[in-house]
Amino acid sequence: MVQVAVLGYGTVGSGVVEVIDKNKEIVSGNVGQELDVKYILDLRDFPDDPYGDKVIHDIDTILNDNEVSIVCEVMGGVGAAYQFTKAALQKGKSVCTSNKELVAKHGPELLQLAKENNCSYLFEASVGGGIPIIRPLNDCLTAERIENITGILNGTTNYILTKMEREGADFATVLKEAQEKGYAERNPEADVEGHDACRKIAILSSLMTGKTVDSEKIYTEGITKVTADDFVYAKATGRTIKLLAKSDAIGEGEVLAMVAPFMVDKDHPLAMVNDVFNAVFVRGNMLGDSMYYGRGAGKLPTASAVVGDVVECARNLGKNIPCRWSTEDAILADAADIEDAYYVRIKADRKAEAQKVFGDSRFVEIADRDKDFAVLTNPMKEKEFAAKCELLGDAVISRIRLY
Amino acid sequence: MVQVAVLGYGTVGSGVVEVIDKNKEIVSGNVGQELDVKYILDLRDFPDDPYGDKVIHDIDTILNDNEVSIVCEVMGGVGAAYQFTKAALQKGKSVCTSNKELVAKHGPELLQLAKENNCSYLFEASVGGGIPIIRPLNDCLTAERIENITGILNGTTNYILTKMEREGADFATVLKEAQEKGYAERNPEADVEGHDACRKIAILSSLMTGKTVDSEKIYTEGITKVTADDFVYAKATGRTIKLLAKSDAIGEGEVLAMVAPFMVDKDHPLAMVNDVFNAVFVRGNMLGDSMYYGRGAGKLPTASAVVGDVVECARNLGKNIPCRWSTEDAILADAADIEDAYYVRIKADRKAEAQKVFGDSRFVEIADRDKDFAVLTNPMKEKEFAAKCELLGDAVISRIRLY
Repeated sequence: MVQVAVLGYGTVGSGVVEVIDKNKEIVSGNVGQELDVKYILDLRDFPDDPYGDKVIHDIDTILNDNEVSIVCEVMGGVGAAYQFTKAALQKGKSVCTSNKELVAKHGPELLQLAKENNCSYLFEASVGGGIPIIRPLNDCLTAERIENITGILNGTTNYILTKMEREGADFATVLKEAQEKGYAERNPEADVEGHDACRKIAILSSLMTGKTVDSEKIYTEGITKVTADDFVYAKATGRTIKLLAKSDAIGEGEVLAMVAPFMVDKDHPLAMVNDVFNAVFVRGNMLGDSMYYGRGAGKLPTASAVVGDVVECARNLGKNIPCRWSTEDAILADAADIEDAYYVRIKADRKAEAQKVFGDSRFVEIADRDKDFAVLTNPMKEKEFAAKCELLGDAVISRIRLY
Repeated sequence: MVQVAVLGYGTVGSGVVEVIDKNKEIVSGNVGQELDVKYILDLRDFPDDPYGDKVIHDIDTILNDNEVSIVCEVMGGVGAAYQFTKAALQKGKSVCTSNKELVAKHGPELLQLAKENNCSYLFEASVGGGIPIIRPLNDCLTAERIENITGILNGTTNYILTKMEREGADFATVLKEAQEKGYAERNPEADVEGHDACRKIAILSSLMTGKTVDSEKIYTEGITKVTADDFVYAKATGRTIKLLAKSDAIGEGEVLAMVAPFMVDKDHPLAMVNDVFNAVFVRGNMLGDSMYYGRGAGKLPTASAVVGDVVECARNLGKNIPCRWSTEDAILADAADIEDAYYVRIKADRKAEAQKVFGDSRFVEIADRDKDFAVLTNPMKEKEFAAKCELLGDAVISRIRLY
């Protein structure tokens, strides 16, 4: 029998307990022996909860119980979660987590610690919720030189953008509605400013290079400036708007990574990833494009990924599951060097100026609109583009990269 | 150093050698030690080939060489390939294959043989080419009760259907063009009649149930009867036509599986899987829908999946990688019991009769068409639908299930 401890009885934690309980026969069958939750660690008590009798308040009970071989860290944060993870790994207990913040910040150190103690640190649930993406990268695409990873990695912003597209609504209106429905947090900054997607692409970029990509150094732009007017032009040009997190391997241990809204061609598979769904595009030098799609958040999908990791650890007790991610820093290329084509929305009465600046670009005018027009530029470096926009001054209303 | 033998130096075999050579550093890095091809088995000689000196003609050289720990069976067929695979596994050599015919026919027996000899039998490349789908099912979605698998599993037919949609062309015209371009074989029956997709869904259904689903018992319908006229109605109703292979888990070890053309709503992610791309939709009871998308065929994508399996075997030498697929037969529900809604195209002058038979259905008429109209029915059992069509006799021109 394999015994598991769950750290944190919040949304994901209660999901983990539920998945293990409801799919017990399948989970135990896949492990090859019975698997059960022995402890749930939380500061609170849950007297009316069906699993309330498993709730304890002292991490040492778990650390000192040799029967517990796997710990699910689903507390979040980088304080106690970090300390508890280190302590568990030092005791030779494998740790499975959904905590992207901790993985992005201390991943390689914790992986090293797991290796030294013949146990494992797995984090499938930290990116893309229930979508298998970490293990495909680590264990399936092992014959590939990964050249690019591009993902829709945040469900909240994708929900908002989908709603804006369908309803022609403004960002603020949709955000408010999403908050009321519980799809967006009351403090939505981590999502709408792109920080969450940034942490996730940092993790994926680290796995791509085998080195550590610092999320704080990735150019990150959120969706707060995207307007209903921009969606009008997106539609008119056969596109939609998505928050993409992307990363190119451009040399040995060097990546070009960014998070920003992009206008995506409607024919591209990423364009049909709607609502809270996530998807990750991976391009390898032999396979070409592949895509992984599914629910990127939510209690049960995220918990399912954590429990999938638990099964993997349980199949490999006493053994380290390898992961190529060293503490060595990856080189992050300057985002200003990225070449992108741009959509620029410009005031209607400034067309003459715009033609001087973007003369070789495609101009898009929509009948019945008298306040603006749009320009779709050729690819150019960010610096060059910024200089052109500066020439136009306050004539530029908005701008979005083209994908 | 890990030494590999490649059986069969055809398209996939030469791809395997190329992937291992070109991505040698990555492959060896992922294994943790150097990996190289020692032998290539083929009846022919390849004097001008850069790897020609590795070509041998006698399987015993491989079987008796203890340095060879992994064999790639990429010959195809169920004759020599079956004998060689058995012999290699009996010698404790792991076997990685792209041979869906052999896997569908003898998979559980070969898995059992691998287990008895502490080696592995892996077949990621047998379904979906380079798309990771076997390992996600076996090793990632291990916390899920898989309820349904639906895939576009044949690149040739998807290419043909995509062309028919885009060009308004007929099946025969597009098939001929596909044959000229090498996207379809000169004898295209296995593809266009659905047999290839059928073998693949049999493999996936077996993994879903853990029991053996006999591909010969799966209801299979190809795309030869799909016409340009049907695409006109698909477009008019916001749909496209795809050859789907699908399987529902409906009870303990019981599945409802079929291969047939379906009209798919344009908003469904499977609708945007075009050209030679494949995709597999998997629905689990916790995760909900997830999808795996990529190149389902082709030399390098398929070879990449084989080499990914080689890496996995090399990481687990002397150990069996488990796979839940027993020789016990799964129960196949009668396809006549499947409830589907249907599109039926009917002769224009038989509308009165059609209204009597399909009175509660949606009638679709397209301006400027005077030879036919279409009916979109409610869901009903195949038997009931067949009885209705019989009442209409030769008024029914074509019929396709709705997805």
